[in-house]
Amino acid sequence: MRKVDVLIIGGSASGIVTAVTGKGSYPDKDFLVIRKEDKVLVPCGIPYIFGTLGSTDKNIMPDAMFEKEGIGLKIGEVVSLDPKNKTCKTADGEQISFDKAVFATGSVPAVPGWLKGADLDNVFTIPKNKAYLDRVQTRIRHANKIVVIGGGFIGVEIADELNSVGKDVTIVELLPRVLSLVFDDEIAARAEENLRSRGVKIAVGSGAKELSGEGEVCGVVLQNDAKLEADVVILTMGYRPNTELAQESGLATDGKTGIKVDEYMRTSHSDVFAVGDCAEKRDFITSKPSAVMLASTACAEARMAGMNLYGLCTVKTFKGTVPIFSTAIGNTGYGAAGLTENTAKSEGFQVITATFEQPYKHPASLPNTNVQLVKLVAARDTGVVLGGEIVGGVSTGELTNLIGFVVQNKMSVTEVLTAQICTHPLLTATPTAYPLIKAAEALVRSSRRK
Amino acid sequence: MRKVDVLIIGGSASGIVTAVTGKGSYPDKDFLVIRKEDKVLVPCGIPYIFGTLGSTDKNIMPDAMFEKEGIGLKIGEVVSLDPKNKTCKTADGEQISFDKAVFATGSVPAVPGWLKGADLDNVFTIPKNKAYLDRVQTRIRHANKIVVIGGGFIGVEIADELNSVGKDVTIVELLPRVLSLVFDDEIAARAEENLRSRGVKIAVGSGAKELSGEGEVCGVVLQNDAKLEADVVILTMGYRPNTELAQESGLATDGKTGIKVDEYMRTSHSDVFAVGDCAEKRDFITSKPSAVMLASTACAEARMAGMNLYGLCTVKTFKGTVPIFSTAIGNTGYGAAGLTENTAKSEGFQVITATFEQPYKHPASLPNTNVQLVKLVAARDTGVVLGGEIVGGVSTGELTNLIGFVVQNKMSVTEVLTAQICTHPLLTATPTAYPLIKAAEALVRSSRRK
Repeated sequence: MRKVDVLIIGGSASGIVTAVTGKGSYPDKDFLVIRKEDKVLVPCGIPYIFGTLGSTDKNIMPDAMFEKEGIGLKIGEVVSLDPKNKTCKTADGEQISFDKAVFATGSVPAVPGWLKGADLDNVFTIPKNKAYLDRVQTRIRHANKIVVIGGGFIGVEIADELNSVGKDVTIVELLPRVLSLVFDDEIAARAEENLRSRGVKIAVGSGAKELSGEGEVCGVVLQNDAKLEADVVILTMGYRPNTELAQESGLATDGKTGIKVDEYMRTSHSDVFAVGDCAEKRDFITSKPSAVMLASTACAEARMAGMNLYGLCTVKTFKGTVPIFSTAIGNTGYGAAGLTENTAKSEGFQVITATFEQPYKHPASLPNTNVQLVKLVAARDTGVVLGGEIVGGVSTGELTNLIGFVVQNKMSVTEVLTAQICTHPLLTATPTAYPLIKAAEALVRSSRRK
Repeated sequence: MRKVDVLIIGGSASGIVTAVTGKGSYPDKDFLVIRKEDKVLVPCGIPYIFGTLGSTDKNIMPDAMFEKEGIGLKIGEVVSLDPKNKTCKTADGEQISFDKAVFATGSVPAVPGWLKGADLDNVFTIPKNKAYLDRVQTRIRHANKIVVIGGGFIGVEIADELNSVGKDVTIVELLPRVLSLVFDDEIAARAEENLRSRGVKIAVGSGAKELSGEGEVCGVVLQNDAKLEADVVILTMGYRPNTELAQESGLATDGKTGIKVDEYMRTSHSDVFAVGDCAEKRDFITSKPSAVMLASTACAEARMAGMNLYGLCTVKTFKGTVPIFSTAIGNTGYGAAGLTENTAKSEGFQVITATFEQPYKHPASLPNTNVQLVKLVAARDTGVVLGGEIVGGVSTGELTNLIGFVVQNKMSVTEVLTAQICTHPLLTATPTAYPLIKAAEALVRSSRRK
């Protein structure tokens, strides 16, 4: 029987980061990653294979670090695992014993059982699977009318990419706006307006009832009985944690929310860890179960697991998932960190909010100057910032991270207001009206008026 | 005698922000800004009038907020001020009494007395003065060889802009590198390499000894006796606080470091405040006098002054200047926040440092993907982050602000390492190797090895 110190099941972002962090922390230990895929796709890059990148071949995670860091790699599938005896079996019949195991088995596209016609030809999901996505791309090449069902980030990004290569694309979204789980209505409205101005069609307020066609899909029937023609339908209706093996192994698991973990990312068996989409999440602010699945926060979980494998450290723990997103539609970035006004209110917070908008270069006469908008949401009683949303340019990702650090440091609006920033004509908004500071200023004033 | 509640002397960034913040905080008070200039230039935009903007007319701060916020404006010059009797006189003979006064008199270009030939024709400084800069631009139009003396941010930005419109530009810098007060050597070296590849000539390691010519300048003689031809010489050798009026008014003032102020931005007379380049600064980390003059940190001072005018608030105080800069040379951004390794060591800190570099989009096959480098400097004993430096793309400004918030929150490298971020293919580096987190990881490891 083969023996390894640390066995990691799954080789996407969180598996790799667990391996690299773990090996860096415990260089004397053997690490083995077992993954099903010959080549692993960069998860967040997948929507961009449909336009900007043009092919999955341009979206491959390099494997160089396995050799560089001295981490073993086996292409294969773990078919059973015994946490008590610390052994597993792979599909090719190998038996492997381990000291520690890490589940990084990811997620799979969720397709609701009630959706009639989901099994028709030319109806696709978006799994992290190169061979499958290559087939999707081949089919799409000959398609004209494409309906994307589900207006979350992945649906929106894929729709925008397909539109940019000349397809006739419609997004179907049950809620009144696309991206409305992530943004407050007025921000989501801007994203929609941008998508529409680029040619993407959007049907909101009524979800898909069934997919029609014989053999091949030819249309989508909405719950309000409207009908859309379709050569191809792409389902981006969410993902569910891939927990099958964990469940069969006897680890405490909820099929809907994932493998139960503590703040060190240990499962119900303390030598077995779980990280990423397959692991259950709690919200950083509310501590409630969270459905947020992100490669970036998965990597944070993976770092905690890697460092705690052979010795716990109370300051290196995962403190709950911060919803922290960014995306780009054309040259406009959209980002959010923490709670939206909507979520904060529905969670029972008394909130104050403020929005400030200013060109993101200065003077505004500089070429290619666009708007930067920051909305801040704070608790009325303490002034602590609960979240923020951004519309901006290409620096939206890092500005979202700035607000993410405000949230994670539990900074008050007064602390944001008194903070110092850098500004530069070509890189940021003006120092006299930097939107994050001005939004904090408005919040401080609004809290004083109470 | 005219009576106002709050008199603000100076109408550039810090004067305007004091007025806007003050009026917002105390809407019942009268505010009057007195400034010399008919039109005020956006200070950080000045280098860009020489290329990207093409003219000072495209670099004017809008005056709309005076009317919008109900703030008075007088174009004129305060020639004397009596802090005890709270009155002042302007050049046009008006007498004004005030309740509170704020000095926002800015800075003036510093030209060392020993520099022979500084009074020759076609030798210019870069004051915040539209009429003067319009003359500079007219002269430059007919010049070919331009020597910029002083390789700080302003010198570098002007040189790069003039080079971009086809001038033959040489930067003369006394220190071994341009930008070396702001960046550690290896970062400054990259900026130099970039400038050189764009065609800017750089002469480092020997300062200017004298400017040669009869009537008009025709060359620069360096301290190592090398000679450079020049049709125009631009002196960007630093700025000194404009403290004349404050000194004559009897306020405690140091001609070199500025008007003495406390953390509420009050001068030695508690009804008179001073903000921006004219006010003395202390470093956020070392508390030593700081020579950093930035519009962005000046605006932070101005906000504190504005809020504390009629009632002090201990949580709205200026906590010392954070050196926090960013600039762009072509499509590459350079930023720094807090102490460099060099400064930290010379201040007596035992430091650990780490640098991590990764493309700033992911996958790296995306178009226009360039590198993002983060260097972190932390105190060896506590792990508290003292500063960071960045080479990156257009998001460098906001990423510098992220590191600025790390410094201002006195976050440890472990707190950075355990933080959650957002990532997006088009907007940020990859989640598996986000440079800020990876640099923190390397620092945590290096501190463990001790």
